[in-house]
Amino acid sequence: MSHNTFGHLFRVTTFGESHGVALGCVVDGCPPGIAFTLAELQRWLDKRKPGQSRFVTQRREDDVVKVLSGVMPQEDGFTYVTTGTPIALVIENTDQRSKDYSEISRQYRPGHADYTYDVKYGVRDYRGGGRSSARETAARVAAGGIARKVLPGVKFRGALVQIGDRPINRRNWDWDSVDTNPFFAPDPEIVPVWEDYLDEVRKAGSSVGAIIEVVAEGVPAGLGAPIYAKLDQDICAGLMSINAVKGVEIGNGFLAATIRGEDNADEMRIGPDGKPIFLSNHAGGILGGISTGQPIVARFAVKPTSSILNERRSIDADGNEVDIRTKGRHDPCVGIRAVPIGEAMLACTIADHYLRDRGQTGRSRLADDD
Amino acid sequence: MSHNTFGHLFRVTTFGESHGVALGCVVDGCPPGIAFTLAELQRWLDKRKPGQSRFVTQRREDDVVKVLSGVMPQEDGFTYVTTGTPIALVIENTDQRSKDYSEISRQYRPGHADYTYDVKYGVRDYRGGGRSSARETAARVAAGGIARKVLPGVKFRGALVQIGDRPINRRNWDWDSVDTNPFFAPDPEIVPVWEDYLDEVRKAGSSVGAIIEVVAEGVPAGLGAPIYAKLDQDICAGLMSINAVKGVEIGNGFLAATIRGEDNADEMRIGPDGKPIFLSNHAGGILGGISTGQPIVARFAVKPTSSILNERRSIDADGNEVDIRTKGRHDPCVGIRAVPIGEAMLACTIADHYLRDRGQTGRSRLADDD
Amino acid sequence: MSHNTFGHLFRVTTFGESHGVALGCVVDGCPPGIAFTLAELQRWLDKRKPGQSRFVTQRREDDVVKVLSGVMPQEDGFTYVTTGTPIALVIENTDQRSKDYSEISRQYRPGHADYTYDVKYGVRDYRGGGRSSARETAARVAAGGIARKVLPGVKFRGALVQIGDRPINRRNWDWDSVDTNPFFAPDPEIVPVWEDYLDEVRKAGSSVGAIIEVVAEGVPAGLGAPIYAKLDQDICAGLMSINAVKGVEIGNGFLAATIRGEDNADEMRIGPDGKPIFLSNHAGGILGGISTGQPIVARFAVKPTSSILNERRSIDADGNEVDIRTKGRHDPCVGIRAVPIGEAMLACTIADHYLRDRGQTGRSRLADDD
Amino acid sequence: MSHNTFGHLFRVTTFGESHGVALGCVVDGCPPGIAFTLAELQRWLDKRKPGQSRFVTQRREDDVVKVLSGVMPQEDGFTYVTTGTPIALVIENTDQRSKDYSEISRQYRPGHADYTYDVKYGVRDYRGGGRSSARETAARVAAGGIARKVLPGVKFRGALVQIGDRPINRRNWDWDSVDTNPFFAPDPEIVPVWEDYLDEVRKAGSSVGAIIEVVAEGVPAGLGAPIYAKLDQDICAGLMSINAVKGVEIGNGFLAATIRGEDNADEMRIGPDGKPIFLSNHAGGILGGISTGQPIVARFAVKPTSSILNERRSIDADGNEVDIRTKGRHDPCVGIRAVPIGEAMLACTIADHYLRDRGQTGRSRLADDD
Repeated sequence: MSHNTFGHLFRVTTFGESHGVALGCVVDGCPPGIAFTLAELQRWLDKRKPGQSRFVTQRREDDVVKVLSGVMPQEDGFTYVTTGTPIALVIENTDQRSKDYSEISRQYRPGHADYTYDVKYGVRDYRGGGRSSARETAARVAAGGIARKVLPGVKFRGALVQIGDRPINRRNWDWDSVDTNPFFAPDPEIVPVWEDYLDEVRKAGSSVGAIIEVVAEGVPAGLGAPIYAKLDQDICAGLMSINAVKGVEIGNGFLAATIRGEDNADEMRIGPDGKPIFLSNHAGGILGGISTGQPIVARFAVKPTSSILNERRSIDADGNEVDIRTKGRHDPCVGIRAVPIGEAMLACTIADHYLRDRGQTGRSRLADDD
Repeated sequence: MSHNTFGHLFRVTTFGESHGVALGCVVDGCPPGIAFTLAELQRWLDKRKPGQSRFVTQRREDDVVKVLSGVMPQEDGFTYVTTGTPIALVIENTDQRSKDYSEISRQYRPGHADYTYDVKYGVRDYRGGGRSSARETAARVAAGGIARKVLPGVKFRGALVQIGDRPINRRNWDWDSVDTNPFFAPDPEIVPVWEDYLDEVRKAGSSVGAIIEVVAEGVPAGLGAPIYAKLDQDICAGLMSINAVKGVEIGNGFLAATIRGEDNADEMRIGPDGKPIFLSNHAGGILGGISTGQPIVARFAVKPTSSILNERRSIDADGNEVDIRTKGRHDPCVGIRAVPIGEAMLACTIADHYLRDRGQTGRSRLADDD
Repeated sequence: MSHNTFGHLFRVTTFGESHGVALGCVVDGCPPGIAFTLAELQRWLDKRKPGQSRFVTQRREDDVVKVLSGVMPQEDGFTYVTTGTPIALVIENTDQRSKDYSEISRQYRPGHADYTYDVKYGVRDYRGGGRSSARETAARVAAGGIARKVLPGVKFRGALVQIGDRPINRRNWDWDSVDTNPFFAPDPEIVPVWEDYLDEVRKAGSSVGAIIEVVAEGVPAGLGAPIYAKLDQDICAGLMSINAVKGVEIGNGFLAATIRGEDNADEMRIGPDGKPIFLSNHAGGILGGISTGQPIVARFAVKPTSSILNERRSIDADGNEVDIRTKGRHDPCVGIRAVPIGEAMLACTIADHYLRDRGQTGRSRLADDD
Repeated sequence: MSHNTFGHLFRVTTFGESHGVALGCVVDGCPPGIAFTLAELQRWLDKRKPGQSRFVTQRREDDVVKVLSGVMPQEDGFTYVTTGTPIALVIENTDQRSKDYSEISRQYRPGHADYTYDVKYGVRDYRGGGRSSARETAARVAAGGIARKVLPGVKFRGALVQIGDRPINRRNWDWDSVDTNPFFAPDPEIVPVWEDYLDEVRKAGSSVGAIIEVVAEGVPAGLGAPIYAKLDQDICAGLMSINAVKGVEIGNGFLAATIRGEDNADEMRIGPDGKPIFLSNHAGGILGGISTGQPIVARFAVKPTSSILNERRSIDADGNEVDIRTKGRHDPCVGIRAVPIGEAMLACTIADHYLRDRGQTGRSRLADDD
């Protein structure tokens, strides 16, 4: 039963609201004996941090992660070693300015969860979106940092492959490009295109969506469990749980529906080292819900943020019709910051399946397999 | 922890292989006091049944469902009433011809789960695909029949909206058309197009994929639970668990990534009866993971079946390179029969969330809410 | 979320009522490659079977177990090999005589679940106790037979250590005695005592309770997971789920409350082979929720059956006061047949924790560890 | 799958070690709209707090609980209202003196979890017992404070009914006595007896166990779910998860094994108000795993603490034989402080089953039922 927990053997429970005291997570089931530093976790949080370019929200959050439990501090003063007990990570909210929320506290912003939270719970933390704010994903990114440590032989990477109706040119794909531009774009040629495009969108007070691709390389074959614990199913569920995501796909994804059987199936041969190889990866590294050993490739679509400067029709909690216009800081493309979040969800999900296959205490962690 | 179970309060555990003794499921958590007949379940199984047109596999399966437990038979001789205890449903395999599997038992068919099952388990039921066969979905369809009974006020429907690269014209949408053609097409004009297209594909020994849309109307607002039990997340996980599915989306789905914020968010007004209404349904009936009360709309992409008559390169379990051509019965578009399966997964998932919200024994079932 | 399922990686879902069509279970998560025969499962079912002495109910049930899925039948015609997919086991109800239940269908037998099922569900399968009948435990015993196969290096045994107020003399303990008397008594000297005692109880139309001890030898150290998946916690939960059980204890159990710290803690030394040894086993093989490598010892108390020939005061579903006397076959001590059930629950629970620790596919099964 | 989480719809995940930065819990699934103050939670923590008499450990912990999330602070400055999102509660460790742990870090204290943690995890937080310390239970007591608020109509109380071999006289039972003596004794006459007894034990450097009884009054009939989510099963699992507990029982418990059927079953009659009444409560308020509406009564046995001043034989992590004597603060009867912990586990478990029965959002909370 999950409400605010995902994973089964590598389990992440998140808590916290946008403008509460703090947010964080408990990572339960992490194998013992894994060394990490806060700087290693902070690296991923910084990647998700707002305010790093004019294309994302200007809210200032330092997002400094602290560890409360589950580790033995080492003598060097900055390394922690996991003990197999639950790791609590906390990020304090430092930008909780005392604001006047009286107006927005009763109004339902179109495209937001305001209305549905009120219907379900009858009460809602309206301060900065409360629990429905994407701020919750900071905790996931921290947890993802732990998950990466569980699988040191696996490389988890992500990139933005489309903003609005402007996709990258996949022939230009260069992973080295991703961290050199404000979009996590793997295609250097698309960067100026997106800059102009998003400047226009931002000035128009509007927003656009995006498509993110996340890839895991080095995943051993055999992870995943049919029928209802398929690896692709769990990856999609994890990505779908990210705020504003409306679609997910694996490998060829929706494109697979449009092509022929002979073009979609991946042929096999024996490689020079005598091991099986696939001649293509239309499947995205998963067949029958189980990993093939090829790179795992997933994509997800993020809708345009609903908080725009243009006036929209809505209602309030008292049954009045109102017109709403988001004030203040404005995020023309929330999809950009979803890249490190998608990576984190992929890492956590694969770590979970790795432990399901190899056991909870993970004596034979991936590093040892080689 | 799920292997072969999905749902939390309305839980379905399936079992059985394509050519074993029988397959079936245990539906656990169904509220008591619900009356149903086997004919009502059989209706959905018949919709999924193979051999009903030249466009699907000619394997003959009667798929007659029997109930072993969880019910009190009524005096009329055909009505059952649920007691709140687990309902075991069984479908015997009648078409288990003794065949010579010696060749295929060691070969990995490209695009199939043969290789990954062998890697994971070291042993594999190669008879008709074993557990990885879509035959397992017959059990889901039976469970879906029970789920529909849990929510008598909700209408679950599905339709095929694209075969290969030939989409329907959505302006022609007519639900009444769906059951009058062999494709579950909601657009009467597409039927002759698809007939010609699939005849060509079939004659070429090839296959194509498809896109299915499933809709639930009458779902009360407030179902779903952030953050990791979002209704859309669970729907997508359910659809993704269906064989050959490579992508899932809710509402505008991937299209949402390409349009602007003002075009994607659904505005609200107060309706003539004083209740909130939405002026559009781009969200597909779910905001923040919680149902809005609008129709829930999901789509999923099914890849072309990998069993084609054309020869493909592969390997066998002994490390030999082989060339494989599927013999015998051949399914040019497995996506067609996925329509009732998608409906069943949608029904089970929403029944599950309904019980989470309203309680396990479901004293206040939807029918009583009105 | 469990209703009718227990275990996490080795999961057992049972279904079926006392007088329905059939009962059975789905064993999900069993590792692949395990060979077994139905005769091996039947052995445990026969041990639980009623009608084997005058001290247990005379109801005649053959309890023949069949396997529907999850296995590959081998060429010898009677061996099955598990494939890692769910194993469905079914036992048909052959003794479903058409009886007149009109009286009992509305009356609440004191000490039975009749009243609480009616309160909870509003409907109840009154035929032979329905789902609340101990007949459900036949499915557990079958599942336990599979669990034993998962852990070939572990010996699971049980014995009756007390009937009513007549305990065995533990100094006479002889495991070989257990299968040579109708009570599963490990003390040959208690057998004539219990015979006379139970004959008296039976003739008086009354019943008595019993205490059962179950032991697992050969369990590797390190199984169990603090804090809420403690091995002793899960063992106790499993035993507590057996019908009529009112108390459970591990090692010294309730006695531990009455003795001093120096008498209860188990001292350690290095054994002749250089490995750690414990000098006593007051802990029952578990410390901090994790196995020590010593034998795991648990006991559970079964209440006297509430179905007695003497008249008792009760009410019916219509609010009338009634006097109830159980007619027909009568079981003076249900605790006797609880011995194989306790063994089965212990085996399933330890198999589950074994897989949690070592991984779902159990590549390194216990047999291989040596 | 639980490691450090218990409950299904009312879920508690605890984290933290004895001498780490902080410990706490995340309470997930708490219904919205429940008002509480920190003082109301602190009341239960203070009851568990060490150092309150010479009969418990003198470690000084203030155990001040803070709330990080899941609530809306109200204008009065001290009331919180739950929002349905996860409630994170944190208790900072203030007594983390920098100590020399070099000796104990390698030694296995008899009767402690030192050895098993090392076997399982290969690493262990030896500072004050780390995660295996009873200090973890402070988080449960805080969660129990929330659970009590979920069920305002239910009274959860506990008492110590036996220390060592000295039971109370149940005829003297007086709930008002419980909070007037350092033992939570319901029998005023036992107080001087236990004072003398424990003084003797303490001076001898030894320890004794205890038996605790917890009672829930006002629980509605119909909670619990056969077969593997029985209310008594879940209560026993919860109590068994408390440190040092070796046995649990419901109602007559082990005594039920020794008496006759006619003496153990609870007869029924129609009460003056026309409602069913039970004439006794041997069952402890649960039949067939479902609550009867009578008080729920459970007992659990706590072993004597293994940390005693007398020297005991053991080994260290390097395979040396050593003799261990616990130094410093010493707890002659850990069972005393288990009373509020048992109450908390009972409250959390019943709240969980209440929500399973009535639904996650708990619109119809117990207070409204009346």
